[in-house]
Amino acid sequence: MTTSDCHASLWLARNDRDMANCTITFYPDNKKVKVPKGTDILNAAIAAGVYINSSCGGEGVCGRCKVIVKKGEVVSEPTGRLSKEELQKGYVLACCSTIHSDVEIEVPPGSRLKKEQILTEEAKVERLAGLFSKAGEVEKGIEIKERKIFSHSPLATKLFLKLPPPTLKDNISDLERLYREVRRKLEIPIVQTGLANVKKMGRLFRESNWRVTALLGKRNGTTEVVLIEPGDTSKRNFGIAVDIGTTSIVAQLVDLNTRKTLGTKATHNRQVSYGEDVITRMIYAKRKDGLEKLHHVVVDTVNELISVLSTEHQISLSEITGVMCAGNMTMSHLLLRVDPTYLRREPYVPTANFMPVIRAAEAGIKINPRGLLACLPGVSSYVGADIVAGVLASGIDEADKLSMLIDIGTNGEIVLGNREWLVCCSSSAGPAFEGSGVRSGVRAMEGAIQKIEIDPEDYKVKYSTIGGAKPIGICGSGYIDTLAELLKAGVIERSGKIKENLNTKRVRKGEEGLEFVLVWKRDSGTDEDIVITQADITNLIRSKGAIYTAADILAKKTNLELKDINKIYLAGGFGNYLNIEKSIWIGLLPDLDRKKFAFIGNSSLAGAKFALLSYEATMKTREIAKKMTYIELSVDPSFMNEYTGALFLPHTDIGRFPTVIKKLSLK
Amino acid sequence: MTTSDCHASLWLARNDRDMANCTITFYPDNKKVKVPKGTDILNAAIAAGVYINSSCGGEGVCGRCKVIVKKGEVVSEPTGRLSKEELQKGYVLACCSTIHSDVEIEVPPGSRLKKEQILTEEAKVERLAGLFSKAGEVEKGIEIKERKIFSHSPLATKLFLKLPPPTLKDNISDLERLYREVRRKLEIPIVQTGLANVKKMGRLFRESNWRVTALLGKRNGTTEVVLIEPGDTSKRNFGIAVDIGTTSIVAQLVDLNTRKTLGTKATHNRQVSYGEDVITRMIYAKRKDGLEKLHHVVVDTVNELISVLSTEHQISLSEITGVMCAGNMTMSHLLLRVDPTYLRREPYVPTANFMPVIRAAEAGIKINPRGLLACLPGVSSYVGADIVAGVLASGIDEADKLSMLIDIGTNGEIVLGNREWLVCCSSSAGPAFEGSGVRSGVRAMEGAIQKIEIDPEDYKVKYSTIGGAKPIGICGSGYIDTLAELLKAGVIERSGKIKENLNTKRVRKGEEGLEFVLVWKRDSGTDEDIVITQADITNLIRSKGAIYTAADILAKKTNLELKDINKIYLAGGFGNYLNIEKSIWIGLLPDLDRKKFAFIGNSSLAGAKFALLSYEATMKTREIAKKMTYIELSVDPSFMNEYTGALFLPHTDIGRFPTVIKKLSLK
Repeated sequence: MTTSDCHASLWLARNDRDMANCTITFYPDNKKVKVPKGTDILNAAIAAGVYINSSCGGEGVCGRCKVIVKKGEVVSEPTGRLSKEELQKGYVLACCSTIHSDVEIEVPPGSRLKKEQILTEEAKVERLAGLFSKAGEVEKGIEIKERKIFSHSPLATKLFLKLPPPTLKDNISDLERLYREVRRKLEIPIVQTGLANVKKMGRLFRESNWRVTALLGKRNGTTEVVLIEPGDTSKRNFGIAVDIGTTSIVAQLVDLNTRKTLGTKATHNRQVSYGEDVITRMIYAKRKDGLEKLHHVVVDTVNELISVLSTEHQISLSEITGVMCAGNMTMSHLLLRVDPTYLRREPYVPTANFMPVIRAAEAGIKINPRGLLACLPGVSSYVGADIVAGVLASGIDEADKLSMLIDIGTNGEIVLGNREWLVCCSSSAGPAFEGSGVRSGVRAMEGAIQKIEIDPEDYKVKYSTIGGAKPIGICGSGYIDTLAELLKAGVIERSGKIKENLNTKRVRKGEEGLEFVLVWKRDSGTDEDIVITQADITNLIRSKGAIYTAADILAKKTNLELKDINKIYLAGGFGNYLNIEKSIWIGLLPDLDRKKFAFIGNSSLAGAKFALLSYEATMKTREIAKKMTYIELSVDPSFMNEYTGALFLPHTDIGRFPTVIKKLSLK
Repeated sequence: MTTSDCHASLWLARNDRDMANCTITFYPDNKKVKVPKGTDILNAAIAAGVYINSSCGGEGVCGRCKVIVKKGEVVSEPTGRLSKEELQKGYVLACCSTIHSDVEIEVPPGSRLKKEQILTEEAKVERLAGLFSKAGEVEKGIEIKERKIFSHSPLATKLFLKLPPPTLKDNISDLERLYREVRRKLEIPIVQTGLANVKKMGRLFRESNWRVTALLGKRNGTTEVVLIEPGDTSKRNFGIAVDIGTTSIVAQLVDLNTRKTLGTKATHNRQVSYGEDVITRMIYAKRKDGLEKLHHVVVDTVNELISVLSTEHQISLSEITGVMCAGNMTMSHLLLRVDPTYLRREPYVPTANFMPVIRAAEAGIKINPRGLLACLPGVSSYVGADIVAGVLASGIDEADKLSMLIDIGTNGEIVLGNREWLVCCSSSAGPAFEGSGVRSGVRAMEGAIQKIEIDPEDYKVKYSTIGGAKPIGICGSGYIDTLAELLKAGVIERSGKIKENLNTKRVRKGEEGLEFVLVWKRDSGTDEDIVITQADITNLIRSKGAIYTAADILAKKTNLELKDINKIYLAGGFGNYLNIEKSIWIGLLPDLDRKKFAFIGNSSLAGAKFALLSYEATMKTREIAKKMTYIELSVDPSFMNEYTGALFLPHTDIGRFPTVIKKLSLK
């Protein structure tokens, strides 16, 4: 049983101590968990560490959480989401069925959240992080050459101190002795510490022969001695930068002394079992124990990433002293167990944009028990810290000329501005570009198809995968390529419709209508064909349309046009690669000079890392968050009209994409 | 069972969950407690709320904790402290005897800590506290007329806020909304709060219709929102000032809005059962669970005082938002459960002079769960916050001319200086003037004899008691009077020796040698004669000698003489009255112009109250603590010589007391 399993089942147990326990076994994983009688199968699965699809958050609406009861007593509510045939086969909806005896459950492939190994996601973060390399040494990339270097002052700094032992002449208290030595080494005005440190200080100082390491953290302008350790542990000080997305969570292990990134791990946000988007989860949070569950699940996910990173790099959890998180507003609230209810109620206010820095342990994050947890600030209910971090990483807040940041996650957030002003908006893009809600979608990970070419003559498909492994699915950048290539090869209409009468076996009728086979089963790393379905295409077009429309309207709202923009940064968890040209072909990006575009990868993670490594950068995020003005697009009367226009490839108003017309010979 | 009983027995139970329990009954109180087999009787008594004398801290040395085993199995270590007769009667030492069955124990009167009702102790604190009365309005007393008025800014301030509800146009987060309103009302730069408040904020603001009360606390230059309550609770904000003495603890309930003192309560520091002085307790703290016990017992004592005060004034504990403590260094350490070990080891350093402000709950103090606990700073191991508070209250740190503060507690601490410099020292006076370690001693409480006159002709005694009640014993000021009057009436020699051949029944032979009866049993509030014994006199002379010597040497150390001092403030828990003239007669104070003296009462409590009511005063104590230089007198070569000289009434060198020679016709 893994730690998180323990946690979840303990949690359930705690809430129903006196109820009879049932053992539930999930196949094909063969995972077992004891839960109180009456627990629904979806929750039992989460407790067991089995992740079942559920985009509606267990409301019985989406019908994605189909499972088969093989043995035992289960009581299900009636549902229209299951066919007669399915009911005969023993199918039930996991969210609507409660357990009343020991049971065995089969989770069919279609209901499973992709079982992914946690793999390194190499993003362009590294390049941006190069900003720290050496004072004065500036990277060459156009997009960052004007950026200033942030000072090196991590969330938590270790300082080795040789305290002069007290004598009759120098008999100030232990605490003052500590402060005096800290102030001798660093120019900092106020130093404080907690009672826990004072309690252990007397003995610790003497037993360590007055050689100690102080862990210092800055909070609200004062410096806190967070922790005191015997001897010199200053060489080992590590931090974690986390991007908490609605669909994926990415954590990065950073050496706080050298500023080097040691490793990056990503995984699904397990909250997905409680709903695909933030709205569903906010609704879920209103249920009994809903907030508690959402909180625990996201904390478990972060802990798992930290645990894997630390194990792999042979770092003890006690050597990890700080965690810096960037997430959207809902994620920040849920991470800290703050009720997100008011985010979705008019007038849509967060409980806090600027969350207090706390001990990580207070939120259940497992690092050094006295280590710190900081959440970067957000702007509004729908523009969170992930975007503020992105602005920090891209530096558009420091540019003289007009720049735009487009961050593609489950929502597509857009920021426009320069050093004088910043406006931002959010559009519901959906998680298609994150590999979620699309048949063969995966995140940017080993084996994910990231580049595609389709021969317009014979429809043969050339592709390359991350790490060169056998393909296991398609990630966001792969989908952009696929859409562009399908259009170019004439497999799909500009409306996205797959043409039926093509001379290729790759176009075929599947369960959900027409689909195009990109990789045959024999070449696939899974045991299935890798396909893109008509439903996938519709999904992807909606996503790209939502983003383009938002960018377009945001520019117009400020009396500008997209062509006035000097630089457009594209961010998102696409991995290392994103084809700008093809993004323009499908109308995700406007048809401007290609030199204006730069793909900067996971800028939320990059920003979190900057802030983790620099108090100056952290303070900068506060400035940015205060400077950004949120604009609500959905209330704009032209929105629906514009959006409908963008549901074509590249757009109904094809005149907006002159170079694409030419290159793809569109009409 | 009272709360503290529960606490103590729970505490014992926690440590020996699996051991068989024995029921022990203490007579005459008829108090019962269950303790694990093997518990010693002294600890069982504490758990039962029965307070037994023990000046050695349970080391089996002082022989004061004699009890009689009436029933049950008790295993005692051999001791030379019990006579054959006592052994035959079933006497054992409570500290050296463990319980091995249900037992019944009789605590004889001599072994009992005086069972005192907690009574109001009216000290001169009120007069000093008048400093706050109104800006510009200054009290008339000589000693305070030059003092400045401290600004009114309590440890915790309540602020009622009508928050404008959020709208689509004004949709900043709840937390920013709170901060904005606080900043509108008060000019404070940084505001912060804890996650606990953020978590409940969303719901609380809406349910209270945006009418809330914020409790603000200043810490290290930043302001913290300590607590948020629905509606307007700002009218009800109370604090507690505490003087934690080695022998007595005094707590004062203060209305933080009006600055009015609502009540004062005092009681024994129950740590007395673990040793009479700080050294014994520091040694006790080294035992297994010793620190834990000392900590719990002092916290229980403070909690009991708070509970009585709040009940009496119909104040809920949740309306008490701050506690300000002044205690000597050992008491500060023990209150916060910081190991005092290093205080008594060369080079005698405290773990912390400046203790962090914490939530009272963190130390087990029962007020509002988020309320604050602050300990005033001390100077060194043997000059603590009680003396710093005394300097604050007396204002000698602001005087142009030379002043001295003499604080008589279990130790006698002395401060000398002016606005330029301050030096201080400590002498082991013993608790005689606190009514401890002397046969008929009581604290300044109702029924305590505070004034005495003895007719030199017939040795008749006139006395007055606090509150005019029947006399129950003699308090510190009463003992000073008694000593002076015995000397004047010729009952004792200048050496303190009681004259045997006087024509009065009042001088008689008691168990411990000669004694003088002040009040006959028939007039006494207890069922016993009230007497002063030869041993008491020796004890009192040692105390006064130690204090005089310390004052004398401290002056000489700074190349001054006592006569150079412009003003001498005498402080201590003497109640409302102290006769300066008679204090000079016995040589406690030097023979200077009487106008130079002022009795200022419990200045430790007064200082704590000032700090409780004013952040400015709190900051002032930090300044004072830093400014004070500690001088170790015991290493002075002339000390023993001077001390021996002071063991006479008023002094061997009678020339130092010219007016006393004259008035008492001494030779």
